Amino acid sequence: MEQSEELDLAVKILEVSPAVYLSTISGDGFPETRAMLNLRNKSIYPNLAEVFNEHKTGLLVYFTTNTSSHKVEQLKANPKVCVYYSKPEEWRGLMLQGNLEIVHDLNIKKTLWQKDWMMYYPKGIDDVDYAILRFCPLLAKGYHQLKNYTINF
Amino acid sequence: MEQSEELDLAVKILEVSPAVYLSTISGDGFPETRAMLNLRNKSIYPNLAEVFNEHKTGLLVYFTTNTSSHKVEQLKANPKVCVYYSKPEEWRGLMLQGNLEIVHDLNIKKTLWQKDWMMYYPKGIDDVDYAILRFCPLLAKGYHQLKNYTINF
Repeated sequence: MEQSEELDLAVKILEVSPAVYLSTISGDGFPETRAMLNLRNKSIYPNLAEVFNEHKTGLLVYFTTNTSSHKVEQLKANPKVCVYYSKPEEWRGLMLQGNLEIVHDLNIKKTLWQKDWMMYYPKGIDDVDYAILRFCPLLAKGYHQLKNYTINF
Repeated sequence: MEQSEELDLAVKILEVSPAVYLSTISGDGFPETRAMLNLRNKSIYPNLAEVFNEHKTGLLVYFTTNTSSHKVEQLKANPKVCVYYSKPEEWRGLMLQGNLEIVHDLNIKKTLWQKDWMMYYPKGIDDVDYAILRFCPLLAKGYHQLKNYTINF
């Protein structure tokens, strides 16, 4: 498989997975996974699709979370994370590894903001508990039915 | 919520999740997640349901994998893992942390064996590449719609 074809399969699963699974490393050294909103899902967030075109690999990921959350504390101590997309019923999956960083750029936070996030961040975009996290992969390992692929960035 | 009710919610999601996500820690310190067959899923593996009754918490997990796989190598170096079950469309999830061990007991390997695993392990139960991994949680964090719960074992 050509690398462009592999990247294409990788981008496609980002755009259709119902959820995304983010794994950090906890203070006592265990991986810790949780489901997150998949902002790359085009049918759930059609208005965000163009935000992700800026990155050369097409595999740029943003998450929203509470600044006060456990995962923010964990990534400050250790930014190494795994991001996983899955359509188990279609035998498709994508594992990404890289570093996760907190976004301080207010323009990005405004661009990503969705009205219904008021339920998470009652004070809106200026809520100190509204955080955006940014992830670019260093490694991707995917499978698509019987095809397996690995991409190093 | 009573702890018995929390455990009940936890067991229920094990039994209906289409897949289970296993995260190990890679040699370079990143979490590494992959989807695994969910042997606890009662509709996919009805004949295995009673195997899991032996454990007091009800949260005993077995995985099958290739002895030669990357994850087996990783768990020999670091047995700390995270096991995640998810029904994102129903807003239900369960995160388990604990140590993963390789099962050497041939009786357990025979009890768990499924006929269609010949496609993974062509020599059958005696295939040296047929491995069973065993996991009991030390910590569980779950959510069920608006209910959150944490159980330490």
